[in-house]
Amino acid sequence: MISVEEALSRMLADITALPIIKLPLAEVSGLVLAEDVVAQEDIPPFDNSAMDGFALQSTDSKAHNGQPPRLRVTGGVAAGYVADHAVEAGTAMRIMTGAPVPPGADTIIQVELTHNDGPDSTWVEILHEVTPGNNIRPAGEDMRRGQTILQRGAELGAWEIGILATLGWATVPVVRQARVAILGTGDEVIEIDQPLAPGKIRNSNSYLLEAAVRRAGARPERLGVARDTVESLREKFAQAANYDLILTSGGVSVGDFDLVKDIMAEQGQVNFWRINMRPGKPVAFGHIGGVPLVGLPGNPVSSAVTFELFARPVIRKLQGHTYVLKPQVDVTVEDGIQDRAQRRHYVRAYVTWHEGRFVARTTGNQGSHMMTSLLQANALVIVPEGGPEVPPGTVLKAIMLDWPEDTRV
Amino acid sequence: MISVEEALSRMLADITALPIIKLPLAEVSGLVLAEDVVAQEDIPPFDNSAMDGFALQSTDSKAHNGQPPRLRVTGGVAAGYVADHAVEAGTAMRIMTGAPVPPGADTIIQVELTHNDGPDSTWVEILHEVTPGNNIRPAGEDMRRGQTILQRGAELGAWEIGILATLGWATVPVVRQARVAILGTGDEVIEIDQPLAPGKIRNSNSYLLEAAVRRAGARPERLGVARDTVESLREKFAQAANYDLILTSGGVSVGDFDLVKDIMAEQGQVNFWRINMRPGKPVAFGHIGGVPLVGLPGNPVSSAVTFELFARPVIRKLQGHTYVLKPQVDVTVEDGIQDRAQRRHYVRAYVTWHEGRFVARTTGNQGSHMMTSLLQANALVIVPEGGPEVPPGTVLKAIMLDWPEDTRV
Repeated sequence: MISVEEALSRMLADITALPIIKLPLAEVSGLVLAEDVVAQEDIPPFDNSAMDGFALQSTDSKAHNGQPPRLRVTGGVAAGYVADHAVEAGTAMRIMTGAPVPPGADTIIQVELTHNDGPDSTWVEILHEVTPGNNIRPAGEDMRRGQTILQRGAELGAWEIGILATLGWATVPVVRQARVAILGTGDEVIEIDQPLAPGKIRNSNSYLLEAAVRRAGARPERLGVARDTVESLREKFAQAANYDLILTSGGVSVGDFDLVKDIMAEQGQVNFWRINMRPGKPVAFGHIGGVPLVGLPGNPVSSAVTFELFARPVIRKLQGHTYVLKPQVDVTVEDGIQDRAQRRHYVRAYVTWHEGRFVARTTGNQGSHMMTSLLQANALVIVPEGGPEVPPGTVLKAIMLDWPEDTRV
Repeated sequence: MISVEEALSRMLADITALPIIKLPLAEVSGLVLAEDVVAQEDIPPFDNSAMDGFALQSTDSKAHNGQPPRLRVTGGVAAGYVADHAVEAGTAMRIMTGAPVPPGADTIIQVELTHNDGPDSTWVEILHEVTPGNNIRPAGEDMRRGQTILQRGAELGAWEIGILATLGWATVPVVRQARVAILGTGDEVIEIDQPLAPGKIRNSNSYLLEAAVRRAGARPERLGVARDTVESLREKFAQAANYDLILTSGGVSVGDFDLVKDIMAEQGQVNFWRINMRPGKPVAFGHIGGVPLVGLPGNPVSSAVTFELFARPVIRKLQGHTYVLKPQVDVTVEDGIQDRAQRRHYVRAYVTWHEGRFVARTTGNQGSHMMTSLLQANALVIVPEGGPEVPPGTVLKAIMLDWPEDTRV
């Protein structure tokens, strides 16, 4: 039996990022950038107006004897077009937000600070003195040609995608999304649309894990349920070996029918299969034909919790993410924890920010068969090994499951 | 010009949830449950063993004269099967985790507290006295037949999906996912794979919004870019009116070519089109042919920020979510904010939890054309109207963009 930290570190040491592929920009959301992005152009590409207004020479904006200067309007420039003549002394041009500043002009005055005769006016009065550069966004102010804008390893969210579009990256080199095989095991497991028969339970883990894999950013595929026979497991494992990662649930404990780790040993290698934690002691890790396999426990709660603690970081590392672990914060355990375990205990809890601190409330009976203990939980409170007392008000670390990963390994 | 709060409340008052449909369980991740889920069976469905071990009568576990009792092993029961005979006094049966407790037995002892002759042993010695109910998970302990387990309005994450699978909900009534049309506008906007020409910029907003819509849980479709003509906009709007929501970017300000709100007025209705905020004053809301339209500003930063503040809550409400707004926390603005605005100012910042408080660091020049100010930002610090000074160390509210929504409206 090894510690949670050792288990995680042995798993992650064994995982390398998947190959780099090029994908259309519209398909890279959530994936990891595989090359630095260097601006090939200045952005904005040209000096442009931050306002709807008039382009002029700033020296023409000074009032004379208290009277606003009146300038001749020689034309206009709309966004997307360039002026066909320059702004000379005593003249101005209409200009729209985003339009290039016409040659000769060194400033823009917003329309609200001018007076004229309507949209076709041939003159404009300048009601406020403006300095050079006013309302002008200089070329390159946002991104400078040659500047590294995004670094290899960046996770591509909506905003990074906007920047890639601006820079013309219509296809993007990314670490490939992981294809994850999900395999249930056990003669007791029936399909979800079947009526219950004596001794049987429905296949909840495969559906739970499918959704969890998808939320982790990978592409899940359910391969069904292997029977508790060597033949059935061999057949399913042959199929699973075509994926980037295999997740099994059940079959990794000490029982006579816990065959998963036997098949792992036969067709690959078992790195470890027991972790000093609760829920979820029986977590196996190893390989089948070169493909990493995380063997999760059969109890639904154990399966759900160990997915978050182990399988999700493995998927993140496969997909090239820099940050693979969820944040931990100090929480005050409002109701205390009665249920004592010798092993490291991950207690499902709902954590809220209340009057300047994080407060945790546990979600009921923590038995590994109590799926309802998962409902409302957004955190796992960590009770150290040895079964310490946790009276109400104790401060412990909690893993915030709904926040983005912030920790490297 | 209306306040952010009024804008949001007018938008949301106008949005109703999409119709309810039934989908296969594998397709409901992230959607909202449309009916209460009541358990039709006890879960677990039968008393079962929490351990690999032996089923026996607890009275048989008492030591006699300091000697462990030796019981006759009459068979075994594996998970998925039921015993074909009862456990009688003086006998025991092997039992696997999850297997139904055989009739006659009232307790289970784990294998580690027994001694026998190997897997085929015909006897077992009981090394520890056990009480009735030990290691037995009673039927119905997790979910009781007739109990409401999930409520209408619940967001279906991996764990809720595990519970639905357990209860046999192979198809699930959910609020339909929103189909969102995304429309760029402006003669200056060219496709992302085109070289820049004088006065032109690439269509970054459509790609940014596509990824943002997907992350909000809806299904985006880019409809391309409308030219700055009434005809082009009418054509694109006719297409967009087949969706559940229309997002435009650009064309909603006061310029001569800002035609979006004119077409809205022609083909539907404009509710408002200016909000007292920065970045992003020109945000329009209304309808085209009965379909809600959120007109976002053309500046990429304004578009990105106003999507989070307005379009995302609208999408959440369309999809039936109870919580539509992101959490706010108090943050200490480490570097202060030099850039003063009269309007409500949403400042891009990176917030971390540091020594018992949240610390915000702004992400550089806050101009609405500075896309790089979005990089690394995970929060929007809210500076109130009136342009107050924000020296280093000021405590302000910040919206946590990466955390799940926690606020009703």
